[in-house]
Amino acid sequence: MFEVWAPYATLVEVHTDAHTGDGKTALTRDTAGWWRGPGGIHGLDYAFHVDGDGPFPDPRTRRQPYGVQGPSRFYEHGRYTWGDHDWHGRDLRGSVIYELHVGTFSAEGTFHGVIGKLDHLVGLGVDFVELLPTPPTPGDRNWGYDGVDLYAVNEVYGGPDGLKDLVDACHRAGIGVILDVVYNHLGPSGNYLAKFGPYLHSYKGSYWGDAVNLDGPDSDEVRRYFIENALQWLRDYHIDGLRLDAVHALHDKRAVHFLEELSAEVDALSTAVGRPLTLIAESDLNDPRMVTPREAGGLGMQAAWDDDVHHALHAAVTGERHAYYSDFGSLAVLAKVLTHAYLHDGSYSSFRRRSHGRPAQHVPGYRFVVAAQNHDQIGNRPEGDRMAADQLWLAAGLLLTSPFTPMLFMGEEWGASTPFYFFTDHFEASLAAGEAERREREFKDFGYDWKAPDPQDEDAFLRSKLKWDEVAEDAHTSLLGWYRDLIALRKSYPELADSRLDRVAVEFDEEARWIVVSRGSLRVAANLGDFSTPVRLSPGSVLLASDDNIRFEGEDLCLPGRSLAIIQFAR
Amino acid sequence: MFEVWAPYATLVEVHTDAHTGDGKTALTRDTAGWWRGPGGIHGLDYAFHVDGDGPFPDPRTRRQPYGVQGPSRFYEHGRYTWGDHDWHGRDLRGSVIYELHVGTFSAEGTFHGVIGKLDHLVGLGVDFVELLPTPPTPGDRNWGYDGVDLYAVNEVYGGPDGLKDLVDACHRAGIGVILDVVYNHLGPSGNYLAKFGPYLHSYKGSYWGDAVNLDGPDSDEVRRYFIENALQWLRDYHIDGLRLDAVHALHDKRAVHFLEELSAEVDALSTAVGRPLTLIAESDLNDPRMVTPREAGGLGMQAAWDDDVHHALHAAVTGERHAYYSDFGSLAVLAKVLTHAYLHDGSYSSFRRRSHGRPAQHVPGYRFVVAAQNHDQIGNRPEGDRMAADQLWLAAGLLLTSPFTPMLFMGEEWGASTPFYFFTDHFEASLAAGEAERREREFKDFGYDWKAPDPQDEDAFLRSKLKWDEVAEDAHTSLLGWYRDLIALRKSYPELADSRLDRVAVEFDEEARWIVVSRGSLRVAANLGDFSTPVRLSPGSVLLASDDNIRFEGEDLCLPGRSLAIIQFAR
Repeated sequence: MFEVWAPYATLVEVHTDAHTGDGKTALTRDTAGWWRGPGGIHGLDYAFHVDGDGPFPDPRTRRQPYGVQGPSRFYEHGRYTWGDHDWHGRDLRGSVIYELHVGTFSAEGTFHGVIGKLDHLVGLGVDFVELLPTPPTPGDRNWGYDGVDLYAVNEVYGGPDGLKDLVDACHRAGIGVILDVVYNHLGPSGNYLAKFGPYLHSYKGSYWGDAVNLDGPDSDEVRRYFIENALQWLRDYHIDGLRLDAVHALHDKRAVHFLEELSAEVDALSTAVGRPLTLIAESDLNDPRMVTPREAGGLGMQAAWDDDVHHALHAAVTGERHAYYSDFGSLAVLAKVLTHAYLHDGSYSSFRRRSHGRPAQHVPGYRFVVAAQNHDQIGNRPEGDRMAADQLWLAAGLLLTSPFTPMLFMGEEWGASTPFYFFTDHFEASLAAGEAERREREFKDFGYDWKAPDPQDEDAFLRSKLKWDEVAEDAHTSLLGWYRDLIALRKSYPELADSRLDRVAVEFDEEARWIVVSRGSLRVAANLGDFSTPVRLSPGSVLLASDDNIRFEGEDLCLPGRSLAIIQFAR
Repeated sequence: MFEVWAPYATLVEVHTDAHTGDGKTALTRDTAGWWRGPGGIHGLDYAFHVDGDGPFPDPRTRRQPYGVQGPSRFYEHGRYTWGDHDWHGRDLRGSVIYELHVGTFSAEGTFHGVIGKLDHLVGLGVDFVELLPTPPTPGDRNWGYDGVDLYAVNEVYGGPDGLKDLVDACHRAGIGVILDVVYNHLGPSGNYLAKFGPYLHSYKGSYWGDAVNLDGPDSDEVRRYFIENALQWLRDYHIDGLRLDAVHALHDKRAVHFLEELSAEVDALSTAVGRPLTLIAESDLNDPRMVTPREAGGLGMQAAWDDDVHHALHAAVTGERHAYYSDFGSLAVLAKVLTHAYLHDGSYSSFRRRSHGRPAQHVPGYRFVVAAQNHDQIGNRPEGDRMAADQLWLAAGLLLTSPFTPMLFMGEEWGASTPFYFFTDHFEASLAAGEAERREREFKDFGYDWKAPDPQDEDAFLRSKLKWDEVAEDAHTSLLGWYRDLIALRKSYPELADSRLDRVAVEFDEEARWIVVSRGSLRVAANLGDFSTPVRLSPGSVLLASDDNIRFEGEDLCLPGRSLAIIQFAR
């Protein structure tokens, strides 16, 4: 059966010899604007014509074997044989997430390439992998945020079966899968949704593109398009959670916000499939309503990204203060975010030039996904560079003992030497030229020169691929061991993952640059300065230390410069 | 002292010989972008120049003696002598509001003209008058929604002292005053705010004009501009409440919404002045969060307009079904709104072509301000015409016995024969031409020809003035008595104003067109059809009847066509 929603069309045709445009068959409209016709079997290529215009891919195409400009291909979910019967899902509570980009994670740059590295992830101890978006994108390489055909899977990565293979393998390895999905805009190329219906608001949007029509005329069906997309991943791909890109760019004034509606639908599916299903919002609103349960007037997300924690960690560890780091960097700010989740909980944000956010200390910490690095915070730097190894030792120690849900970025765990550049593969000349120009302009606004390769240059992509060989090198192995130990410790001592923010106590000395975070019977003591410093602490045993020279001298813990230890108190 | 906020300016000058532009004095900037200088006494005319451009009125001007394009005049609130010491304010609960437009309410068209009619309002029994907006507007006549200089009072109506005289007189007569204020846009003429600072978002707005910058860079001070404006009316003008125009056109994604911040400030002032202060939102969002207390996650408005009740009443009584009345008209819908406040509490709205709203039955009914007529619902009709008298008898009977806060529109209470047209007095040719053109286009979209006079034609204004002589005519006197009796009854029987929506029970017969609304021991029985009908009711006493022929025959109440009675049950 062919079916497509095109409420304003007067003629919708399907043809299955899609490359020539011959052999068109008219579909029949129902009163709700859906057009249907018999036909369609697994593997058949087809495309639609709307009022004589076309061919266009199916808005709900599950396969785009020829890319974003080509015809669609029928794909039946039921033909896949799953082997993850022993997987019963897992909750975000107590978990560690690992964010990765399929194209650059492995040499192959495919889902199967990720499968080949699962042993590494199991050894590391992470609970979820989070995939950057996997829809069809222009050309052969893209972060994923230029996606279109949102129900399909990028063929470059291995298409629908490849993604299912990866999910299946993850589940058999005891790892959950979170998929990054983009519902706030569509990619600049291959987006034919507007030919079919009022999917987009042309008059409001972000700089990524037109906003999605969530509250205008005929938006009920547009909302269904996105909600059923979410349900497809969770149901038909056995995905465990979705990371919703930039929800602050969703424009919706309805009394029932799109996210609340989505959350209700996902909860219903969770009950039906008997697995926890998780929604994580990327939001820069610092609004606890995002993660407040629906029955308490919230939007019902299980969690939200919390960039304030990233900024506080990053600025404290690296000393950087440019652009959005301007309010961050002090230990006082680090202490604030570790105990209150947000620095900006109503306070003035210099970067935004206005006050921002509201208090969130009552929210359980696991509802905030925090990172020392992520794709944006590396890839959107003018040089696409990662934190130095000595910075990662400290950042990881603070991150993985925090009351939040920690997320690592691929390669961070061994201090990968490879950058993560922004890369694209547009074939339209204007888009190709625009990416570099836009980047340069953006960074100039922050007073930086863009020094990364032109995003269109294949080199930007190739140089971003992880070099797995380097894991075996001493310095990298040692850092990897630190990450493994920290994750293992977090799982052995529940007080480290305790999400009650009002139970976190922090002491620090801004001058001496030491900070001590109390987590139940444990103390995380870090010296972020370059010089050795004593910290007065009741004696205890050193559970984990980044430096062999960390030791107690009487009641003083001696912390060499740039070191961190986790101490268990003798109560 | 002169002071003005102009954060991006490099030179701000004031001059007090404002008509010639001579005699400019530079002000001094502080770090927050405020410019100040000595000088300024009550009655002095002045204007500002920004970076050599000007003269412009003060954004916070309290007087504009020469209109929206002229200089400002110093005005000290403390010079006014108040006589309302016995007024301690009043709460919205149990109140009836009376909406009026100062320019057309009386022959004089001034605040003093309104004072001359206060006896009428006292006799009618209303608790609040609600004034259409009173800021300076272009020319001599305007509804008020084209206002600029939001801290000033239209000189055509009598300026600041005139408004204070009216408030003072109302209070001494035992009547509260609600002022309609427009914070979602500014008028198209005389708006120089953008010369001073980032007051407006040029990239988003409504068709009335650019949106106000409530969440962009430097918006803290913009929010203060509007919040302090609200406080000025409530504090310095002794106003009792504000009606906030079209809050759905406020664009604010902050975690603390502008309305929540405003509500907190007004509550604090209420505590300080020891009077109840009321915020009423005009909102088409059907979102109970608007009137949910802040401490329960809401925006903290005391009340919101509820057009669903208007539409249900209007369509049921008049039989009209065009445009936004399309989902309304049945007695089932009337029953729904009387018991649930909203028809659209998640259901599909044909007019919006999407589902709309969320349930609100838990909200006390007094938080919904409802009307059978208001300035919009008359003035935005193609002929600016009011309901016919026989319709008003029924509508008033249902409205004034409802669990909501009823609002009347000036003249409604005697079935005024005068229309209420849309009128303007623009002097820019493009604006002048645009008003008629826009109206015609809008109404064409709804399938109507615009038949009212050209808004620019003074006749549109003059013909909209109430004719007070007609009150003495029999038909009008009789309707006026009905309104008086209904209001008096509402105040004598608290069950009529009981705000618990789940205590309202409604029975009806769609075919026979009768409806019975149970309000405690009272029954409001109405026959909206043209033909007499019996209604089975346990016998009781007729407290009030629109028709002398209403009587019990055994257990049947006989209701002639187009009649309504209020019955007290023998329990």
